[in-house]
Amino acid sequence: MSDITLGIIGGGQLGSMLAISAKKLNIKTIIYSDDPDAPAQNFCNKFISGDYNNKEKIIEFVNLVNYVTYEFENIPFETLNEINKLKPVLPKPSVNRLIQHRLAEKDFVNNLNIRTTRYASVENKSEIEALEDLLPGILKTTTLGYDGKGQFLIKSETQIHEAWEKMAGADSILEGFINFKRELSLIAVRGIDGSLEYYPLVENSHHEGILRLTIAPAQNISASLQKKAEEYMSSILKEIKHVGVLTIELFESDDLLVNEIAPRVHNSGHWTIEGAQTSQFENHIRAITESPLGQTTITSKFSAMINIIGVHGPIQKVLKTKNAHLHLYNKEERTGRKLGHITLASNSIDELNKMIESLKEYLP
Amino acid sequence: MSDITLGIIGGGQLGSMLAISAKKLNIKTIIYSDDPDAPAQNFCNKFISGDYNNKEKIIEFVNLVNYVTYEFENIPFETLNEINKLKPVLPKPSVNRLIQHRLAEKDFVNNLNIRTTRYASVENKSEIEALEDLLPGILKTTTLGYDGKGQFLIKSETQIHEAWEKMAGADSILEGFINFKRELSLIAVRGIDGSLEYYPLVENSHHEGILRLTIAPAQNISASLQKKAEEYMSSILKEIKHVGVLTIELFESDDLLVNEIAPRVHNSGHWTIEGAQTSQFENHIRAITESPLGQTTITSKFSAMINIIGVHGPIQKVLKTKNAHLHLYNKEERTGRKLGHITLASNSIDELNKMIESLKEYLP
Repeated sequence: MSDITLGIIGGGQLGSMLAISAKKLNIKTIIYSDDPDAPAQNFCNKFISGDYNNKEKIIEFVNLVNYVTYEFENIPFETLNEINKLKPVLPKPSVNRLIQHRLAEKDFVNNLNIRTTRYASVENKSEIEALEDLLPGILKTTTLGYDGKGQFLIKSETQIHEAWEKMAGADSILEGFINFKRELSLIAVRGIDGSLEYYPLVENSHHEGILRLTIAPAQNISASLQKKAEEYMSSILKEIKHVGVLTIELFESDDLLVNEIAPRVHNSGHWTIEGAQTSQFENHIRAITESPLGQTTITSKFSAMINIIGVHGPIQKVLKTKNAHLHLYNKEERTGRKLGHITLASNSIDELNKMIESLKEYLP
Repeated sequence: MSDITLGIIGGGQLGSMLAISAKKLNIKTIIYSDDPDAPAQNFCNKFISGDYNNKEKIIEFVNLVNYVTYEFENIPFETLNEINKLKPVLPKPSVNRLIQHRLAEKDFVNNLNIRTTRYASVENKSEIEALEDLLPGILKTTTLGYDGKGQFLIKSETQIHEAWEKMAGADSILEGFINFKRELSLIAVRGIDGSLEYYPLVENSHHEGILRLTIAPAQNISASLQKKAEEYMSSILKEIKHVGVLTIELFESDDLLVNEIAPRVHNSGHWTIEGAQTSQFENHIRAITESPLGQTTITSKFSAMINIIGVHGPIQKVLKTKNAHLHLYNKEERTGRKLGHITLASNSIDELNKMIESLKEYLP
């Protein structure tokens, strides 16, 4: 077994789960985080804490590793680009920059003939006023923001002023609101040799911009819908020559629309730890370290993933729930914070729904 | 969620897998090992290296934790006993002492009306000579030794001298050799409230005293055989008021004989990570931290566990094998050393056998 050390930027639960997956493959991990209390620091071979702009610390980190990946998108492009001059960074910094910019991302997707919601660039308040036909819509800053932060749902023209105030002058994008049937996501992994593995489409429920529940596979998905989603995925992955896991968030309406792309492991894929032959975390590690990809086939007919948000809630009840798998992230309670998740598995959708119902304290 | 810190003595792969299971339940872990290079040190919240007789270091460790467990048996009784005066040690030191002593262990089991192989205590060479009717037999030191170390198979009287030389004067036990049909093991977990969960009987193949292959569940096990094994388990667990996981190694011949007891998670239970609803590691953690036990039901109809011994072998082939799960332990290659394991899962026994056959490089 080769002696590989992987650098991971970011020390939250995704970093932790990536490090644990790497360990199983004899791949050492060094985690770099700007949070000295990052929970992943106890589950890696070495932890370095420093600012994401601290060139000296970053170089110290890069010198110790063979590959670099990251668990979240909001890392300065300059930092990733500098690292990439020394060691392979996957996903590529250019991909991250593209996807961090909501407008560039939407343009990129539309140029591949993939539908998104209608959208327009907004650089000042008067521009929103001129985009009346896109209302109701969601105003978002073009960069930064996640889990519903940096977003404002404009129901009518009277809210334009308030919405624009919230953006605090940042370049923004106005997305026409859409009455979608449901939210889906597709996770896939692409190897360095171009090999591709898709997980099944899953159905996601959000509340206040935060994912609360994922059902895997999404129910009532026609073969043609799964195929269409996979075609979207394949065009995107090939266009950017992606290596590693990538997630597409979708809206299902009369058509299938791309909402967002995340070039990484994703909260809606946590069920794969128990519910698929190879988890999204292990597949990401396999891809970026030039190993063969693992199977993405499901191991239970139905899985559900419930996020634990803000407070830990009745943990003893979860531990007593038959076939429930608890994953806590070693974080302090805080409103809106992801503290853990629960995976439920069953071969019957009715039983799965009963299990979800029995843990409704965890749902909004 | 309560703020529990668990101390684990021993830093090998079992310690590592215990620490990772504890993490998911928000239980912090501190590992104490006499090996400063112990592989588990990178997967716990704190690592302390020191001799198992170093009272000062041990107390430093104990002061930081709420409970103490251990991943292997060969820890001085005095050390465990001293720790137990300060913090709960599970399994109890007295249980460990009993089970570390092969003669006491066999007497204990027989006193519960559970059959073992025939055996006799041996304190000098002439005693073996008087035990002719037990030959062929295996001479073992009464304490220490594992994975075939400290054992000698005496095929005929002419080997008595050589066998006794090997024991180097240590108190020994002579066990009458038995032509068993196969080796089985049963793993169970007992909660602090006396609740009990059994994994199914599994079939084990050893080579030179080292486990090489486990098939789970063991095939062609009658309900009465599973029941008998569970009765053995239940008597033993209740008699010693055990808390945590315990493993019984068995011989299946005309009857079911107990070979050895290990009061801990066991190599023949590694398949439970992917193959059971709750792994043996998580169940041990749940039990000793006074949490409800998890289900021990299997998730694939058939699982196999192949140990990677001495050399890493064709790892790329394992990564390419459909539905194979690789677990490497971050250890250097050395003859007879456990470097990792592979879990195979299938809903068809024929397919499982084909998968095992395809990885025959890993089998003796």
